[in-house]
This record gives sequence, structure tokens and C-alpha cells, in this order.
Amino acid sequence: MSRIVEITELALRDAHQSLLATRMALDDMIPVCEDLDNAGYWSVECWGGATFDSCIRFLNEDPWERLRTFRKLMPKTRLQMLLRGQNLLGYRHYEDGVVERFVEKSAQNGIDVFRIFDALNDPRNLKTSIDAVKKTGKHAQGAICYTVSPLHTVEAFAEMAEQLREMGCDSICIKDMAALLRPQPAYDLVKAIKRRCGADTLVHVHTHATTGVTLVSLMKAIEAGCDIVDTAVSSLSLGPGHNPTESMIELLAGTGYETRVDLERVLRVSAHFAQIRPRYKEFFSENTGVDTEIFKSQIPGGMISNMESQLKGQGAGDRLKEVLEEVPRVRKDSGYPPLVTPTSQIVGSQAVFNVLMGKYKVLTGEFSDLMLGYYGSTIGEKNPEVLKQAEVHAKKPAITVRPADLLTPEWDNLSAAANALPGANGSDEDVLTYAMFPQVAPKFFLSRAQGRKNLGKDPASKTPEQKTPTAAGGGGSLSAKVSYLITLNGNEHRVTVAPER
Amino acid sequence: MSRIVEITELALRDAHQSLLATRMALDDMIPVCEDLDNAGYWSVECWGGATFDSCIRFLNEDPWERLRTFRKLMPKTRLQMLLRGQNLLGYRHYEDGVVERFVEKSAQNGIDVFRIFDALNDPRNLKTSIDAVKKTGKHAQGAICYTVSPLHTVEAFAEMAEQLREMGCDSICIKDMAALLRPQPAYDLVKAIKRRCGADTLVHVHTHATTGVTLVSLMKAIEAGCDIVDTAVSSLSLGPGHNPTESMIELLAGTGYETRVDLERVLRVSAHFAQIRPRYKEFFSENTGVDTEIFKSQIPGGMISNMESQLKGQGAGDRLKEVLEEVPRVRKDSGYPPLVTPTSQIVGSQAVFNVLMGKYKVLTGEFSDLMLGYYGSTIGEKNPEVLKQAEVHAKKPAITVRPADLLTPEWDNLSAAANALPGANGSDEDVLTYAMFPQVAPKFFLSRAQGRKNLGKDPASKTPEQKTPTAAGGGGSLSAKVSYLITLNGNEHRVTVAPER
Repeated sequence: MSRIVEITELALRDAHQSLLATRMALDDMIPVCEDLDNAGYWSVECWGGATFDSCIRFLNEDPWERLRTFRKLMPKTRLQMLLRGQNLLGYRHYEDGVVERFVEKSAQNGIDVFRIFDALNDPRNLKTSIDAVKKTGKHAQGAICYTVSPLHTVEAFAEMAEQLREMGCDSICIKDMAALLRPQPAYDLVKAIKRRCGADTLVHVHTHATTGVTLVSLMKAIEAGCDIVDTAVSSLSLGPGHNPTESMIELLAGTGYETRVDLERVLRVSAHFAQIRPRYKEFFSENTGVDTEIFKSQIPGGMISNMESQLKGQGAGDRLKEVLEEVPRVRKDSGYPPLVTPTSQIVGSQAVFNVLMGKYKVLTGEFSDLMLGYYGSTIGEKNPEVLKQAEVHAKKPAITVRPADLLTPEWDNLSAAANALPGANGSDEDVLTYAMFPQVAPKFFLSRAQGRKNLGKDPASKTPEQKTPTAAGGGGSLSAKVSYLITLNGNEHRVTVAPER
Repeated sequence: MSRIVEITELALRDAHQSLLATRMALDDMIPVCEDLDNAGYWSVECWGGATFDSCIRFLNEDPWERLRTFRKLMPKTRLQMLLRGQNLLGYRHYEDGVVERFVEKSAQNGIDVFRIFDALNDPRNLKTSIDAVKKTGKHAQGAICYTVSPLHTVEAFAEMAEQLREMGCDSICIKDMAALLRPQPAYDLVKAIKRRCGADTLVHVHTHATTGVTLVSLMKAIEAGCDIVDTAVSSLSLGPGHNPTESMIELLAGTGYETRVDLERVLRVSAHFAQIRPRYKEFFSENTGVDTEIFKSQIPGGMISNMESQLKGQGAGDRLKEVLEEVPRVRKDSGYPPLVTPTSQIVGSQAVFNVLMGKYKVLTGEFSDLMLGYYGSTIGEKNPEVLKQAEVHAKKPAITVRPADLLTPEWDNLSAAANALPGANGSDEDVLTYAMFPQVAPKFFLSRAQGRKNLGKDPASKTPEQKTPTAAGGGGSLSAKVSYLITLNGNEHRVTVAPER
């Protein structure tokens, strides 16, 4: 008698977000929906902040319409989204009324499972969305950002899991976005959560493949009683993406665990994306191998490259090593926040400033806000001296209340602003789109009627170097005015180019 | 108290054989030898059939000299080679005297660990080389080709391990060249071998990464008591290659197992090959992702593509499905040989013939030899009717003796033939080079004095299309569509330019 291990398929959200810069067009997903819907997944993750953003920013596609399409094409399967707690899909705290409206509309349009996390692991930032999900009758999954620090012990994580359960979460997710979760901690963590929250508490593990160790971690999590794991079909897996679904299914043979996922259907989905993926070549992440650097530095790769380019911008490209040594100190001073968006950028920038300008001589506004509690509370105590400096710098006091408690109702204002935009359709969904991305939404509302774009390109036509361009003589410079037909973001422009006078 | 898990590094042999068509030049390996030698590996695999072949066929390099170089540069570390039992590094059975001479010379030139296998898992084909290794005082490792069939039970493999131990092997290797070894069988197999051969029997596991499951298998093998595992530095890992060394080291943290390998040195080796690898771009295997197909078909990918091209050559490209169904039947009729070189080709070709010409209407010479025992014995009974047909076809009887027992001493002939070749230096090593590759050696002896080649190329210079084409054209008009990468306000745009229609 085998125990069933459930699987969440990431192909439609996190997989192409991690591997193809979130550029995959809906039309390239529609052909696999029937197989996904019938494969027997516990859920299909298909919606989240970056996909929403990419829809309106690059694909001229209404993200709500995308969701409704998935709902229609996958009637049998739980549709899952990733929600940044009080930040929803945006980058600031929203007032509770907006959070409630967003959750309600997401549920109405098709979401069944809301995976809710907060970058600081502050449960207060999750509370309104959890309550809102419970009100809709949908599945509220409380996620714990996995990170490593002296304070992030197994018991500390298990305690957070218990809080999330007490807040009404239907399941607990260990969210390992940096592929830091090694096999033994994975085992210990699942065991501790089950022990503390009850064996019937659903535990879901999300990891990335970056460091090459996490398929083993998933196996150990399963041995510890984990109920659901996240994977992506093999053609959209590995590198900064996730572990392959096919491998997960196959490796369980004989172990006493099995999935209910239909491998034949998974292979068809994977074959489809194997064909599609080369069309998005220009968005490929170059690094598809394994990178274990993060185990050493404890600093996510993206954060390192950010700091590197900041340093280079200041002509101090040679001081990265000092900055890497400064990061753990800044992290400690700020109470050991997990290093994910946005805290990774905030801590990283402050570390750069400390190295270039002297220790806390200059504070970024965001770092002050982090110190003063405006993002939420951290697991550790803050350095009181740095806290004092932050108060002086920001000219405001530290807070201990939930940040969103300071906000006043904003729905009416958002609604008025959104509905005044040309092309807005008057729906609550449009107001929410505007609320999430106020800079991008106006342009999207204007162009929406032109229909959605597919940025995928025939890989054969994508290699200009193979064609013989007929350029002008002498070094390819122009000798006379020429007119060209130029295609940019799918739009044709008639352009005249002339030699410089 | 952690238990030590030892590691064999594959970068210098199987890793570039699997990923870069064995083309890596010695000069690209020399810079990492010091780090490899001091990293604390149990052994460094650096020699074998394909590397030997590639040296004289493509790199104009004396493989014996390569071995001596490794010996000099890695004085502290066991150097390991892969030996095909009675076939040595070639494709036929050699008479015992040649086997003994080859082993003696390999040991003298630097090999410490001889991993010895036979494609049929016939221990008689391993005996002479095992005895020869023991005579030199070096380490004889008996390898079991892992395969899946109704007869290849855990107990059958453990029985073979026991035979190898009784024949004097210092350690046992489970050799999983097709990435078929799932976690539970890995665990069961190691347990069974330890139970049967004694807990102090060193068990070494070799797997490839192809199917994406085998790092988990290595973990389960370790939990079962496996002593040594094979990995390759991350920049030469994954796809048809192996699991990454760095990931192996990192994943053990906290598990009660640890390696003694110095991660810093491994990272330096890996960084070196990350720089070198792009220079061998033209030899890249395209498929670097995960492929679980073999679990379904039980037929290695290389074998499928061979059969496919055979079928296409016969204008029967549409009959692959029939052939794939025929393979298990042909395999059963021939006593369930493991499907590795050369049996995979032999069984595959016969399956193609059966489908195209009618069941066993035509027998290949190799298939007849396989049926009649000229490659050795198989685990299963042969189909007596097909056996009879093979006797008729081949006009010779089935044998039950060890194939090499039919051979007469051949050293003197080989020696005379080799030494008569222009450029041969009169050494036993040259005679052995000639014995292994009689078609290739003569040309190599002739050109050897010109020195070794490096087929790696500056990746920048490898794309002639990037050079500025100097074309004619009045006023710089385009005759064809061209794509450019245009940076405008810091944003990159891919722009397509076409002549006005």
C-alpha cells in the first residue's frame, strides 16, 4: 500500500517566470490545458505577480481574461496563485479593503488555491488575505519563506507554521525560492511542522533546482510526511527553474510512495513546451546548470549581480568582496530578514552604501523603513543604534503596529482614478489592475483592444547572422537616405535612416 | 560522528566523454590537476577506451603520455581507468597475454584503480584482467552493468558481486550507464551486496544524470552503506553526463554523512571548465535537459536513434514503433543481455531486420555470435530455435567455453606488425596502441611528432556570421530581412528590418 504524494505543476507560472522571463504567451499554453486538467495534479499554478505584470507590460493581454481562460479549459483541477500577502501582486502595502476585493475577484475569476507569503515572514501581513480567502470558501495556503540564519531554526519555522494554522490556513507551504533547502533540513522541517500542527496538516514543499540538491530534499521531505511537492515538466525545468515532474514521478517507483499523475499526459505537455521553448530563446536565462554558490555566501545570485552593477556604477567594481562580507552584518542589524524581494535589494543596497560611504553614514529610505517596521516585523531584534539613526534619517518614528493599520481606505480613490483612464472598462478587475501597476495599466488599457501579443519567434528566423545582409560599402556606413520597414514589439514602423550630417 | 562518503571525480574522463564527445585536450586539463590532486577525492577517473581512441584519432596525442602527465601532476591521488574486461579498450576479445601486458603497462604508467566490466556481465570475461591487476598490486574494481529485465533481480546482481569478490576484486561497482537506477533499487542493491559480500566490501556507485533521478539514487545508496560515489564538477555535469560534485558535497550537510573533498578546490576546478567548455561548443550534446523516456522503453536513447537511422536508410522510418516492441522480444531470445555497447547495437539491428524482413529471416553476424556464446554467456536461457538458426547461419557451433579460450597467443604478431609501422617507437605501449585501434594507430604514429592538437576554439571566433559582411549596394539598401539588437535609453530592443515592400 503506497502513500500518495500529490504534485503541483508549475509550468504555467513559476517555471516560465524562472526560465523565460515570464514571457510565455497564453496561446502557447492553451494547447496543453486539456492534458494538464486530466493529468491528476493536485493543482496547477498559473497566476501570480510577475505573470500579471508581464501580461499587461509585454503581452498586451488582460491577466483576468487569462485566468478565466484557464478556468474554462481546466474545469477539474485546482488553479493556484502566488499572493504576496498585504502587497498582493504589487510592491507596497494595500489597505485591507483592496486586499479583500482582490481576493474575492481572484476567486470569482477562477483561483482555488491562494499561496500567501510575506517577505519578512510577518504573519500580520498575511492575516487579511487569509481571512479573505476563507470568506470565499477557497483554499488558503500559508507559506513560510525558507531562509538560513542563526535565528531561523527548525523550531522557529514550525512555530510560524502553527501560527498560520491558527490563523485558518488550510495548508502550509515551505517556500524555498533560493534552492537553499538541503535534504536534512527539509526532513526535519516537515517532521517538526507535522509534529507541531498535527499529522493531518497538509504540508506542501516548493523548491527551485538552482543548487542541484533539491530533488533529494523533496525525497527527504516526502519521507518525513510531506503531502504535496512542486515540480515543472522537464522541458521547462532545471537551472533557476524547478525539478522535473517526470523525474519526480519515476523516482518514487518502489519507494512506498507514488503520485496519481498520469505520466503519458505529462510527457505530452513536456513535448509541447520542448517545441515552444526555442521560440523564446531571446529571453533564456543563460545559466541553466547548477550553482551552489549561495550555500557559501547565503546571498541569492540575483542580489549579488544587483550589488555588482551598483558598485560598477560607482566605479568601485573591485569592492564586491567587502560588500559580500558586509551583507551578513547589515542583515543582522536589521533583524535577519529573509533575503527575498524586496528585502534582498534593500539589504544589498545598504551594504553597498556602508562599504562606499562608511558604516550607516548614508541610509536608503527603504532601509530606514525596514529598520522602523514599515515593512513588518522581523524575527530578530534590530540594532538599537542603527534604529536611532533610521528615525533621524527618515524623520518618523519606529512602529510596532501592522503596517497596513496605518492606511486609510483607498478603494474609492483607486476606482475613480482607474475608471477615468481611457480604455478602462469600469470593472473591479480593471481597478485592481490599475491598483497593482499604476504606471503600466494606463498604457495597457489604451492598447488592450489590439489583442494579445506572442513574443515567441521562429528560431530559424531568429538568427540574423545567417542571412547575408546587403550593407553599404566602406565599413557598412550609409551613403544615402534609406527607408526601412521596422518591426518593434510586433508593431511595424516605417523608418527613414540618413547618414549623419 | 559522520560517516565519510568518498568521491570519484569524472571530469577528466566520463564527463567530457558524455558531454563534449571526448574531445577535451590535455592542455585544458593540466591547469586543474593540482587542485584535483589536493581536493581529497578517493580517485580521479582519467583514462578509458573513448579517451584513448580520441587521443590518437582526433588530438594527435599519445594516450600513454597523457597518463604519465596525470601521474606526474597528481602524485597523491588514485588515478582510475575504465577497462572493458577481455576487450580492454577495443572492440574484440584479446588473448590473455595481451590483456596481461596491457594491465601491466597501464599500472606502470600510472593507473591505480582498474574498473573492469563486461557488456554481458559474464565474470569469465573479467577474470584475466582482475588477476593481472592483482599481480601488479593495484586496485581491481569489479563492475556490474546495471540493467532492468525480469531476470536482473537484486539477488542476481548481489550474486554476481559475490563472484567478483571471490575472484579477488577489491571493490564492487554498480555501473549505471543509462541512468536507469532508481532510488529504491539503488538502496536495495547496495544493501544486498553488503549483506552478501560483507559490510567491509567497498561499494562504489556510478550513475549518469540523464533521467534526472539519480542524485536521489546516490543519496539512497549512501543511506544503504555505499562507500564511494561518482560525480563531476558542475560545469561538466548534468544532461547525459553525471551529477554535480558540488551538489553532492553540499547536500550531505547535516545528514550524518560527509565527504572529505575540499569544496574550494572543486569550485576552482569547476570555474576553470566553465571557461573552457564554450570552446568545445561544436561538440556539445544538444540535449542537456532531463529525459525519462528510457524508463518507459527500457531502451537507451543512443540505441533508439541508431535504429531510427537504420530504418530511415531502408525507407522505413515509420516503423520505429514496431521495432521498439520487437527489441524486448529479441532481448529475451538472446538471454537478456544488458543493453550497452556492443549488445545494444547487436540487439537493435536484429530487431530492425526482424521487422523489415520477417522474424529471424536474416541474422546479422554479430547477432549469431551473441546467440552462440562468442561474446560470453548471458543471464538467461537462449531461445533454442533461434540458436539453431544462428548455428546454420554462422556455420559454427555454439560454445560454452570462455570466448578468449579459443584464442592463440597474439603478442608476437601484434608486436611485429606495430613495430613495422613508420613512426612506431618500439615500446610495448605502442604495440598496445596498435592492438587496440589497428585502423587508427598507423596514421597516429606517422603524425605523432607534430605534437598534440587542441580542438577547442575561441567561441567568439566560432561565429563567422558575426563578422561585418562587406556587401555592395547603392545607398545601403537592404535586400533581405535583418535583425538587430538596439539599445535605446538603456533598454534592449530586438529590431527586425526589412526592405520596403
